[in-house]
Amino acid sequence: MKKAIVLVSGGLDSATCLAIALDEGFECLALSFDYGQRSNSELEAASRVVRSMQGVNRVVHKVMKIDMSSIGGSALTDQSIPVPTKEKSGIPHTYVPARNTIFLSYALAWAEVERAEAIFIGVNALDYSGYPDCRPEFIEAFQSLIGLATKVGVEGCKIKLRTPLINLTKAEIVLSGISLGVDYGLTVSCYQASEAGLACGMCDSCRLRKKGFADSCQSDPTRYFYELDGMPLD
Amino acid sequence: MKKAIVLVSGGLDSATCLAIALDEGFECLALSFDYGQRSNSELEAASRVVRSMQGVNRVVHKVMKIDMSSIGGSALTDQSIPVPTKEKSGIPHTYVPARNTIFLSYALAWAEVERAEAIFIGVNALDYSGYPDCRPEFIEAFQSLIGLATKVGVEGCKIKLRTPLINLTKAEIVLSGISLGVDYGLTVSCYQASEAGLACGMCDSCRLRKKGFADSCQSDPTRYFYELDGMPLD
Repeated sequence: MKKAIVLVSGGLDSATCLAIALDEGFECLALSFDYGQRSNSELEAASRVVRSMQGVNRVVHKVMKIDMSSIGGSALTDQSIPVPTKEKSGIPHTYVPARNTIFLSYALAWAEVERAEAIFIGVNALDYSGYPDCRPEFIEAFQSLIGLATKVGVEGCKIKLRTPLINLTKAEIVLSGISLGVDYGLTVSCYQASEAGLACGMCDSCRLRKKGFADSCQSDPTRYFYELDGMPLD
Repeated sequence: MKKAIVLVSGGLDSATCLAIALDEGFECLALSFDYGQRSNSELEAASRVVRSMQGVNRVVHKVMKIDMSSIGGSALTDQSIPVPTKEKSGIPHTYVPARNTIFLSYALAWAEVERAEAIFIGVNALDYSGYPDCRPEFIEAFQSLIGLATKVGVEGCKIKLRTPLINLTKAEIVLSGISLGVDYGLTVSCYQASEAGLACGMCDSCRLRKKGFADSCQSDPTRYFYELDGMPLD
């Protein structure tokens, strides 16, 4: 049976990505990272998402504990840098240096050992925070690296980097996931979710997620603990 | 002062690489990985090497603990796979899936946070074990990725991946290091060194190192605990 590594953060995009990989008939090896991020509730969400998608195809889930907070440089890995709650131009402080390069490197190692033929990552370059490592040109460069970096690549096996969401709006992602039975109530997207998984409603990730539900006319199952500009968020 | 990240494993090549970076006037940030490798004596060697090169320029040393043994797939990260002690064709079992991709990804993250302008890695494609991620084509692909993966890249800063040893023989590397004052007695190259840092003398890495000292007519300070084919090794 064909295998895929799927990066699963616990958020809306990666849950959709996992559902797509399963729908395509892959045996999925879900990979999450405990990298010192602000909120542990994402990892709990990742576990819930994986459990909810166990079905005909087996889903293995590996959570790797890796050290990124000793490097810091981001609001997500350095508690002294606040998470921005207003939209600004440019790449926001929530950008984590080289995060997707690091995550994909581990995914590549696991794909090689497991002889997986694909790596799925839920990057999106439309309704996104402007992170450089979510753009198609980054994905293409990493794809070029894959064949050169590995023994299986030298032997002629091709591991395909799959980004099924990259050209979708957040609304299209929501509709795609709902059509595949994704329960978005299990997911946590907020950059500073509470331990209980309640979302702030103000960070970039919350704003994009809200927009996705609003634009797709779907009810938003997210549990928020703040109000933005005095307006109720759900 | 210009800064460089230098990957330091504790072996002969990376010690030489650090000496070259310092000689070029870089403030060096040495990066080592505790990745579940067979021998802790490499990391002790890395610390000794860094300490020995503290001079006019400051050398910071970071040892990152990362999980690679849960992925396995190599004699260096899976104790059930023996280290080969005879030369064979093909990529040996000591190849660690995507190791240099993972190491360089962390180096890239740190380089971005520190605003370093270079990353030094002591890969060598002549007297080497045939690992795909030591070849010039891999290095070129990672260089292409760097500008696309990072915020500093998008902003136009170029982090240069430096591989001063890539086209040198092991003998040339030894001569280069000796001319820069490297004390190779501090280094450990063996894939299965004892806790005390004694080398097996039989693995690929030991054979290449021995060849380097022999071909350069330099005395070999390595402490071996085996004999190969009944011949004394030093």
